[in-house]
Amino acid sequence: MAKPSVSASPSSTPLLKDELDIVIPTIRNLDFLEMWRPFFQPYHLIIVQDGDPSKVIKVPEGFDYELYNRNDINKILGPKASCISFKDSACRCFGYMVSKKKYIYTIDDDCFVAKDPTGKEINALEQHIKNLLCPSTPFFFNTLYDPYRYGADFVRGYPFSLREGVPTAVSHGLWLNIPDYDAPTQLVKPLERNTRYVDAVMTIPKGTLFPMCGMNLAFDRELIGPAMYFGLMGDGQPIGRYDDMWAGWCIKVICDHLGLGVKTGLPYIWHSKASNPFVNLKKEYKGIYWQEELIPFFQSVALPKECTSVQKCYLELSKQVKAKLGKVDDYFNKLADAMITWIEAWDELNPSTATAAKLPNGSSK
Amino acid sequence: MAKPSVSASPSSTPLLKDELDIVIPTIRNLDFLEMWRPFFQPYHLIIVQDGDPSKVIKVPEGFDYELYNRNDINKILGPKASCISFKDSACRCFGYMVSKKKYIYTIDDDCFVAKDPTGKEINALEQHIKNLLCPSTPFFFNTLYDPYRYGADFVRGYPFSLREGVPTAVSHGLWLNIPDYDAPTQLVKPLERNTRYVDAVMTIPKGTLFPMCGMNLAFDRELIGPAMYFGLMGDGQPIGRYDDMWAGWCIKVICDHLGLGVKTGLPYIWHSKASNPFVNLKKEYKGIYWQEELIPFFQSVALPKECTSVQKCYLELSKQVKAKLGKVDDYFNKLADAMITWIEAWDELNPSTATAAKLPNGSSK
Repeated sequence: MAKPSVSASPSSTPLLKDELDIVIPTIRNLDFLEMWRPFFQPYHLIIVQDGDPSKVIKVPEGFDYELYNRNDINKILGPKASCISFKDSACRCFGYMVSKKKYIYTIDDDCFVAKDPTGKEINALEQHIKNLLCPSTPFFFNTLYDPYRYGADFVRGYPFSLREGVPTAVSHGLWLNIPDYDAPTQLVKPLERNTRYVDAVMTIPKGTLFPMCGMNLAFDRELIGPAMYFGLMGDGQPIGRYDDMWAGWCIKVICDHLGLGVKTGLPYIWHSKASNPFVNLKKEYKGIYWQEELIPFFQSVALPKECTSVQKCYLELSKQVKAKLGKVDDYFNKLADAMITWIEAWDELNPSTATAAKLPNGSSK
Repeated sequence: MAKPSVSASPSSTPLLKDELDIVIPTIRNLDFLEMWRPFFQPYHLIIVQDGDPSKVIKVPEGFDYELYNRNDINKILGPKASCISFKDSACRCFGYMVSKKKYIYTIDDDCFVAKDPTGKEINALEQHIKNLLCPSTPFFFNTLYDPYRYGADFVRGYPFSLREGVPTAVSHGLWLNIPDYDAPTQLVKPLERNTRYVDAVMTIPKGTLFPMCGMNLAFDRELIGPAMYFGLMGDGQPIGRYDDMWAGWCIKVICDHLGLGVKTGLPYIWHSKASNPFVNLKKEYKGIYWQEELIPFFQSVALPKECTSVQKCYLELSKQVKAKLGKVDDYFNKLADAMITWIEAWDELNPSTATAAKLPNGSSK
């Protein structure tokens, strides 16, 4: 992306209205879209209805959308629907799979438009598009944050050979008001609110893992889509609220391997309501415990050179999950199998990109 | 460090007036101290006078200081004075060596007090002290930045075993107005000013290098002092303006090895005057070229387990510099020797901490 010249004003951001889908998992009427109307109305929405499929979800008039409930998912994926979680917002990843667009933005239905410190409403999607269209710099830290931003650059001492950056695959946005805390922290600090607007976007360095939250997240489906699997959570599973974390660890090691960038920071959304910490604790407690073994696992994952596509990386990762995490709990054997099912389902629905992938038995799809 | 409780106001920061020295390299009268008087007057200053030693440097009244010119340095260090640069702000590291305090803050004499977005003058030193007294989190990225800051915490998915953090060795502050650009960027963007106040402090992750600027920098001498060597620059050397960069790469790999933290972000100072880009280009051009080999070198440096003190790490690093960078240019052989001389001089002036170090021949000092 060309940098603005010295005296130019910040370049305008393309809308990408035919290249981006907004994916929303929900169990209720989507009144929250009213507030987003000025920003979201040009886009196509993919609504993934969780829970009781007989319930009718109302979508405010004037939005262009498709809606999938559990019956639809079962019908489209057949037995492979087992890889899509039920009664957990992890079901949203079905929307990533059925999209035909290059970019995805996903947002929770309790997230509203935030204001910047000047009082101006933040167009979160526009900032995500900026982040995705602009390179990342994972190999060396720039102390003035995003070097491609208007008014900033690479500082003294930044190697010139690294200044072109790499393509950005993921843009992770943040939250004002209710911070994304785990149940123990929610319980200890019930009144804490995030009021600090940090005016920065930065690349998460290569080799560094981060906690990716699915509340306000955008990504390039073509670059990283098949790795954006939100795992097995919720109904019938021993764990919840680790769907986005799991995806975050997987996409980060794969982006690092493939030379792709992951950004975090702007844009903020306004997170309106804290979920119930007691319910959350029940969902999370195994994750809190398992996580202590998952992080060292992901920190030491090495993907072989032959893994040249996201699908190949992901299938290799599922193998390593089974080999190394299966002994932590049998759940990870199930999860490793679901990771394979996910890739099979992805490739079925996205045949044009599937040729890049090979199944473990060596036969190409 | 205890975190403030839910309802408490931000805890006050200790002054540390008997535990911190301010080191200032200069060639002129220190009128800039007038603006810093409310913040710096309680502290002891170590002024390192560069250039002509017969020149008299005026220090505003009421400051407690000691001043060293080149004659003093030669007298104190004898032949070992060869490791201290002349006619380059790299000479400041002599001040780190003669200090007897636990903490150092170093600032350039063209740096003034900046204002935060509310118009309040920023006490840069107080923020550095906060940064140094509060742990770092190099092993996992926290998306809400410094988790120990008032109003923030570790987000969901942050492993609990990593929440105690590690001791912070270095606090790297930033600059409003004139950004710290290299000569080519200065030439291309002569009018660019940094006006963006990013309200964040963050740990630079383990394994990630960064461009450390010496303009507004604090560190814990006891934890990392012997690695804060600013190299051979200026008079008689083929390179300048890489003194702080060199120190930054060295301290980062040593902090990573020893499990210490490096932070960047707040506080800002107001950098008043851009240096001459044509002069800078002459000083920098070899560095710009060499840097492309230095970064891969520092990215792949491995320090053996036996390196359990900063001195041991630093001597090992000097050995690897000679072995691997000597072939880039003979300058690095001289620099590697100067690194050893620096440690010898440090240990002579700081005998109580010297026992931790061993010289390459195996004899302890």
